[in-house]
Amino acid sequence: MRPGDDVAALLPADLASEDIVVVSHKIVSKAEGRLVRLSSVTPSAEARQLGKEDPRLAQVILDESMSIVAARDGVVICETRHGFVCANAGVDQSNVPGDDAAVLLPVDPDASARALRAGLPGRPGVIISDTFGRAWRLGQVEVAIGIAGVQPLDDWRGRADAEGRELAATVLATADAIAAASELARAKDSREPVVIVRGLGKWVTDDDGPGAAALVRARDADLFR
Amino acid sequence: MRPGDDVAALLPADLASEDIVVVSHKIVSKAEGRLVRLSSVTPSAEARQLGKEDPRLAQVILDESMSIVAARDGVVICETRHGFVCANAGVDQSNVPGDDAAVLLPVDPDASARALRAGLPGRPGVIISDTFGRAWRLGQVEVAIGIAGVQPLDDWRGRADAEGRELAATVLATADAIAAASELARAKDSREPVVIVRGLGKWVTDDDGPGAAALVRARDADLFR
Repeated sequence: MRPGDDVAALLPADLASEDIVVVSHKIVSKAEGRLVRLSSVTPSAEARQLGKEDPRLAQVILDESMSIVAARDGVVICETRHGFVCANAGVDQSNVPGDDAAVLLPVDPDASARALRAGLPGRPGVIISDTFGRAWRLGQVEVAIGIAGVQPLDDWRGRADAEGRELAATVLATADAIAAASELARAKDSREPVVIVRGLGKWVTDDDGPGAAALVRARDADLFR
Repeated sequence: MRPGDDVAALLPADLASEDIVVVSHKIVSKAEGRLVRLSSVTPSAEARQLGKEDPRLAQVILDESMSIVAARDGVVICETRHGFVCANAGVDQSNVPGDDAAVLLPVDPDASARALRAGLPGRPGVIISDTFGRAWRLGQVEVAIGIAGVQPLDDWRGRADAEGRELAATVLATADAIAAASELARAKDSREPVVIVRGLGKWVTDDDGPGAAALVRARDADLFR
């Protein structure tokens, strides 16, 4: 995948409107030219203090961050310009050729998802995913960072459970569950940047919908930021 | 499901050793008698200050917590005795008959998973799940709180990506991804407490393994506790 390449051209032609295509953000970022050459970066004093092995990478991470939520021993948890909270502001060097390039998140992953969906035959739902760690739990899961045509949340508040009791707080993070499930179908070294998810058409919407922006917990409603 | 009931008896008889059974903790808790009658609870002053509508429920939550990680406007994020960080220490009134009962998490969900697995023909992998919210992101996902015979984490550190670059930080939370995926196969009001996951036999292990305890981030390695 190179800057200017067409992600849609990678995908099978027989997609249906009930399908959901989960695409690793990395190929979207590469196609959009969201790459930085570390050799072109001059680290600031702040970057040098972040404890990263390569201060130039630290500078790129700072440039991609709205704020640093927590940092210790070289682990840097950032709030990105999109409002996502994740390690290194999503800046990543894995599955990138050479040692000099780092891949950034797309500028507007929801817009990327909408553009990809518009270019796909059958107009399936589209999720652009990234691998995020979690507070309190070890290990990482895929989450949705860009969405078009998939319900991000399934809100059961006000609906009743099987006993007829009103569900007070149940809002399922549908798109994140789909992103997490997609990872089970491949391996990290398999060069399979796309997973087609079938059987979940009930969450595919005709309009593109609110996108992954709807999954960001607002700062003033967040106990951990 | 009532105290003393056999969860294994609910499951299909044709399970295979490559299958993974994801069981909502609620039926396990009910079978284990992990129910509290609110009418039997006398709330303390601390419980009354927690901002819950029912201070007796607040008392039950305190009793189930090792510590309160954050609390505001009636939202209480607790660290349970197992080390899980979740709302209300996992105490829940949904899908429980009557208004007087609250369901607690199993005392030792990994032991519950191991016991269930031992009682199942074919010895499939077993995951006991609960619905957890997340820091920074809206909506909830199913996570694994008890595991027997499923690899909780898939550690890629030291292995190479498709470009031959060593993956520095990649540890996939396999069991949590499987739990999240299971929720996509049912609805919150469907009375379907069990999901059979097929095709993921590569993560089923012969021995019961370290369980969901392996998913708990140690307190001294946690930036958010």
